This record gives sequence, structure tokens and C-alpha cells, in this order.
Amino acid sequence: MPGVTTSDSPAAAPLAITNVTLDGVKVTVRCAAGVIAAIGSDVVAQPGDEVLDGGGMAIMPGLVNAHTHAAMTLLRGYGDDLPLMEWLQTRIWPAEASLTADDVYWGTRLAIIEMLRSGTTHFVDMYWHAPAVARAVADSGIRATVSSVFIDGGDAADGQSQRPRVLDELDQIDAAGPLVHPAVGPHAVYTVSPPSLAWLAEVADERQIPIHIHLSETEGEVADCVAAHRMRPPALLESVGMLGARTLCAHGNWLDDAELDLLATRGTTVATCPVSNLKLANGKTFDIVEGMRRGVPVGLGTDGAASNNSLDLLNDVKILALLHKHLASDPAVLPAAEALAVASGAASPLLAGHTMAPGDPADVILVRTDTPEMTPSPLPEALVYAASGSMVDTAVVGGRVVMRNREVPGTDEVMAEVRTRSDRLRKH
Amino acid sequence: MPGVTTSDSPAAAPLAITNVTLDGVKVTVRCAAGVIAAIGSDVVAQPGDEVLDGGGMAIMPGLVNAHTHAAMTLLRGYGDDLPLMEWLQTRIWPAEASLTADDVYWGTRLAIIEMLRSGTTHFVDMYWHAPAVARAVADSGIRATVSSVFIDGGDAADGQSQRPRVLDELDQIDAAGPLVHPAVGPHAVYTVSPPSLAWLAEVADERQIPIHIHLSETEGEVADCVAAHRMRPPALLESVGMLGARTLCAHGNWLDDAELDLLATRGTTVATCPVSNLKLANGKTFDIVEGMRRGVPVGLGTDGAASNNSLDLLNDVKILALLHKHLASDPAVLPAAEALAVASGAASPLLAGHTMAPGDPADVILVRTDTPEMTPSPLPEALVYAASGSMVDTAVVGGRVVMRNREVPGTDEVMAEVRTRSDRLRKH
Repeated sequence: MPGVTTSDSPAAAPLAITNVTLDGVKVTVRCAAGVIAAIGSDVVAQPGDEVLDGGGMAIMPGLVNAHTHAAMTLLRGYGDDLPLMEWLQTRIWPAEASLTADDVYWGTRLAIIEMLRSGTTHFVDMYWHAPAVARAVADSGIRATVSSVFIDGGDAADGQSQRPRVLDELDQIDAAGPLVHPAVGPHAVYTVSPPSLAWLAEVADERQIPIHIHLSETEGEVADCVAAHRMRPPALLESVGMLGARTLCAHGNWLDDAELDLLATRGTTVATCPVSNLKLANGKTFDIVEGMRRGVPVGLGTDGAASNNSLDLLNDVKILALLHKHLASDPAVLPAAEALAVASGAASPLLAGHTMAPGDPADVILVRTDTPEMTPSPLPEALVYAASGSMVDTAVVGGRVVMRNREVPGTDEVMAEVRTRSDRLRKH
Repeated sequence: MPGVTTSDSPAAAPLAITNVTLDGVKVTVRCAAGVIAAIGSDVVAQPGDEVLDGGGMAIMPGLVNAHTHAAMTLLRGYGDDLPLMEWLQTRIWPAEASLTADDVYWGTRLAIIEMLRSGTTHFVDMYWHAPAVARAVADSGIRATVSSVFIDGGDAADGQSQRPRVLDELDQIDAAGPLVHPAVGPHAVYTVSPPSLAWLAEVADERQIPIHIHLSETEGEVADCVAAHRMRPPALLESVGMLGARTLCAHGNWLDDAELDLLATRGTTVATCPVSNLKLANGKTFDIVEGMRRGVPVGLGTDGAASNNSLDLLNDVKILALLHKHLASDPAVLPAAEALAVASGAASPLLAGHTMAPGDPADVILVRTDTPEMTPSPLPEALVYAASGSMVDTAVVGGRVVMRNREVPGTDEVMAEVRTRSDRLRKH
């Protein structure tokens, strides 16, 4: 995202990752001041470096979860297999109505642990009590783009009355730490009035921050938008100045070809969430193959744990690739390297996916390749088709080691808090 | 499968699994003479029992991989993302032409390690050098139904000439050990002549063993069968006496409703392999929802590691459930408990999926529920939607502990053998 730069990264002692494999070659990777300082088979650890042995592992950029509602780990497995409206009305909405900021903090902490343990080093979140999300991010050492959920129910006056809160929350998120990036989060065209969409777009423009919105997730959303506004959802966003290169649209299941062209022209990113789309039976999923062909920037999201129910992008990238081979009746589409680029944010400038070059952010993961599941293990195929997140051993964000040997500090406390809070929420 | 009885199981010391959770209740499970001897919160370990602490874990029947080619771990990731015929002609077939029995032994050993580490305790295999597969099964302590691949290229005389070898291999498989069950393995209607199908069905009938065959995997197979025989594949199998309750058909992607009814009437099982179908872009996958509604016995297979590329049924059962919610446009179809029953063999008498009742085979797994990914973890939803195979800690087959703490004896040697052999095979 904008702002993912050296100066954003927290100070961390220089780090030397030795004996690790990159593109089949054993190298040492030195990280300093939050970025990759040097990389190569002739690079050596310097005196004072924290040294981390990467034997038996491959190094790669961390993955980017382009759309989630992290704190929904609290509602994981609550009302699975129910029809959509029954699920929302009898489970999710009543539970969310009694959520506290502290619930969101702990639910987000758990999600972050799960994401780190499956290779995600940056996630894009939209949820209630966003300052609590920001605190959880800062306390965990992961990178995140954080937005609140903005809803005015179509009432522009109500939306306007929320403006001071929106600006205050953006300030709080911004202040939470160098790895926390604020975004505005209009929920969707069916829950936010056009005037509110317009001023939120202005806020994002003034602050040069991203816009995170759900777009064309269901057929009903498109039909309702046409009925209410005589425009389909992307045209409505265009009319209020909300389509641009800092806009991230989640889902995009019901976009037509002309809309793909519009998004490509505006440089607007689509975060596809195939697992959620299948689980909720949205009827269609974003046509990422056609979208990429037409130049739409893309990313991969898990959506929340209530509709996935995992936050493991290495599982989801396999489903993404396989589903589109099926839909295209062609096993050659979305080959492994391309699918992995989508999951690591490299297919969208907004998601700031990076390579392993010196100067890039030191957001990297080490993946075990010496497991039975990865043997034999030509990469990147093994990462996409054979691995799951459980093969991720180590995560480094901004040059700081946030997970080693799959252990994230504080995990037991976080699980205990979430169990208690989850039990309470499910009683409503 | 037929023959999965107490007397088949190898002698093992009595085993008491304590402190484990079954349907939300802490119980002790005692296994003796290969079966579950007692189960309950008041059951206690007896003097002389091997005691295994199941704290933090749930116990459930082991999973059944209903269709695979285990030794194809040797070819994992070899030619991914290629069009089907190019993949077969330039990669798979040339490599398979130089396979030795020892290659198959080591490739199968690796597959078994991977299957145990993801909760499979019984797999149904079809591959070249089947006696070597049987040896690998016996040396590993897993349960398997093993068949060779029978192909006569449509030449009945050639088929007849193979008869002594077929019978000899069945004897070798049968003699390999109490957990190894032989089956006949006619490859498919497009590779085996009707007279050979007929005598193979007779052999299966005489020996009361299963028949394992690919059926209606591709649209081309159906069209070619109609052109050659004026019958669609199920009708051809019916005409040669091959449809019965001991027959397991892999794939079944292009079965129509009348064919589902025919299979239901005959009690013939379909092993669906959704991940392989998507990866190879078969165009359709078996309609398991309609099949089950019409009474077809069903199971879940991974297919070989060259077309999956994992052997993790807990990944595949999620994809199975989600894919059919999508295809049916209904999030309520194939709910978690039903999907899990399919993966554990309980939806087919032939696959002998069992419950946890006393007298059932002691083929059980312990799954960690105290992980971040499984928190909160209502079962069975968490197993289907949130878990991956990496949460399986312990596997017991026929009352014998074959994996503990995810460690399977011999893993390092097996991986080293497969790496060397795989490198050689990929040079062709």
C-alpha cells in the first residue's frame, strides 16, 4: 500500500538469514533498517547481526491477504451450512451487535497468529472498532491496512453525522504504529449513500490513503443498485469519484467485461475471495483470468473466518488456481507462478507485493521444503499445489522476526481470550 | 472393504488412549486385538496397556482415500499447468515407462507417510508393480486396497495372455499382510477390451474382492465408448457383469441421472476426485449431491500426487463441500458432517467406514483442536472448513500406533530415496 517504505518500518537489529534457498540457490539474506540490504551466495552475516539458520527452507516474499475481517475468528464455525440470509440474521448480525472493542482486539490477535503461521505478512482489513484492530496489529508486528466499516443505510445525513468519528478513527489508526496503514471503508453500494461515498472518496484523496469496499459480490446487489440508482455498482462508484488506483474492491463476482475494462483503466484493484464465494454460494466468482487479461490489478483475500473458515492463503491460492482451470476448461490457465504472484500482492501496485531485491521491504517468509508433502518439491508448483500454510516456519516483517518454528509469542493467552469471548457472543 | 475384520488385524499390544475428546466428551478409548474394545468417560487403562495421552485432541475414525496412485509422489509437480495430452505424452507416460518396482515401493512409502500425516488410515490404490505397493503398505502399517493397472489396449488376446500375471499378482498382494487387501484393476473402458473386463469381473467374483476402475472421467471417454461399443461406459460395464456392490468407480464426472440410478441399484461406489478434476480441467466433476440423493454409495479420493498434488483429504473435503455448494447455488448442501462422512468412508459399505463403537476396527486418528486455526473449534465444522491435515497428530491402524506427534518412522530415508529416484525419472 502507499507508505510501505523503509521509513515506515520499525527499528530492528540487523538480521542475517543464512543457508536459505532462493530460486534453487543457497543464499544469505541480510536485512537492515526494515529492508533487504543484501542477498546472495557470497553475502555473509556481519558482527552484531541476529543470525537465523534457514536450512531446509525456501525464502520468498510474505503473502498479502487482500480482503479479510480478521476479528471474525470470534465467529468461526458459527452457523456454517446455513442459507445466507438465515446465517446473517440469526447468527452473524446478532453476535456482531454485542461486539466490544476488546473482543475485536483479541479476535484480530488470533487472526494475525493464524495468518503469520500460514505466511501472510500484510493483510487488508475492514471491521468494526478499527482502532482496536490497529492496536492488535501494532502489538503483533504484522503489517496491515486497516479500515472501519462505514454504513449509513442510504441516509446521507446519518453518514455526515459520522464524519467526525471517521476522521478520528483514521487518526487513531494512523498513530498506532509504523506498520499500520489507515484506509476508508465504505461497506458497499447497498449500505452507503452516494453522498457519503463521495465525501469518503474525498477524505481518501486528501489523505492519500486507500479505499476498501465490497463490490458486486452478489447478483442481488447489482440488481438492487440498478433499481435504486439506474447504474450498476462500478458506474455508481465512478460517478462519485471512487474508482482509482488507491481503491480496492473486494469480490467483484458479478463484474462484466466492460466493467473489467473500466477498472483496468482506473487502475482499481479487485481482491478476489474464491473460498468465501464458494462457501456462501454467491453463484459466481471474480473472473480473474479475464480480469488479468484486461489489465485489472488483482489480489487474493480469504474474507473473514466466518465464511472461509481458515485464513490460510496457501490453501486458498490452490483453490483459486484450480477453480479457474475448471471454469476455463483449460489446465494451463493461472499457472503456479502467476497464482503465487497474486497471493503475494505482486499483481497489484496498491498491494505493494515486492520481489526479493535489495531495498525491498524485509517482509519475507521461510517455508520448509524438507517435508514429505513437499518432496519432491519443484517451486513454485509445490507452494501452490502441494503446500499448506503449515509448512511456513518463519515470518519476518519490516526486518523483525515475528514467528520462528511456527511459534508466535502470546498464542496461549490469545486463544484463551477468544474462547471465552466467542462463547459469550454465541449466546445471543 | 470386504475383509476388514478383527482377524485381519495384526497382533498389537492393547492400547489405551486417555484424555481424548469424542463428540465433546472426554473419554478413554481402549483398543485390543485390532478393534475398539471399550470407550467412555468411565473406561480406564488396564495393566499392560500402552497408554497414549490424547489431551488437546479429538478422536475420530481414520479417513479413507478412495482413489489414488500412491507412487505418483515420484512425479509430483512434474509438468503442472500443461494441457492434458501434452502432460501425459511428454511427462507422465515416458517417466512411467522407466519405473521399476523399487521406484514404486519408495514412492508408495512416501505417499503413505503423507497420508498418515493428514489422517488417512486406509487408501485404495491402482498402480503399476502392485506387489511393490503391497510391500510398502505392509512395511508401513497402514491399511490399503491394492490393485495393479490392467490394460490390454482393446486386444482381448493380449488381455488373456496377461491372466497368469494378474492371478499371480493378486496372490502376492493377498500374501503381503493382514492389512493389505487385493483388488482387480481394469484401467478403464477405453483401455481394456470387453472380454477382458468380463473375465476380470469373474476373477473378482470368485475371490470376492473389489474391482477398481476409472469411469466416465472425461467427455471424450464417453463419446469414444459410444462410438466403439454403441453404449455409454456404465452400460458397457453392466453388459460385462462389472457393476456390483464390490465395484469402485473413480471419478464418474460425466454420469447422467439414469446412470446414477443404475449405480445406486447395483450398489456400486463412486470415488469422486474433485481436486484432480479441477486441476486437469475435466470440464465436470461427479455430482455427489445428486448421486447421494439417488442412493449411490460414495467416497472421496485424492487421485495421484501428479494431479493434485497433495494427498491431504482434509484439504480435499473442504474443496468437495465448497465446490458443490457453488454448483448447487446453495450453501446448505453437503454440510460438514455429511462431507466428513464421505471422507471417512462412511458413505459406502465397500469402503467400510466405521463409527467409534466397540467392535469397530481400531483405525482412528487424533486431531489437535488446541491450535489457533481450530479456535474456536466446533466439530465437525472445524475439521472440514478450518483444518488441514497438519492438525492430525496421531494415527492408529488395526490398534497399532503408526504415527505419533506427526512422526512416521523412516521418513528421512524415504524422502532421500524418492528424491534420487524422482530425479532419474524426470530425465527421460
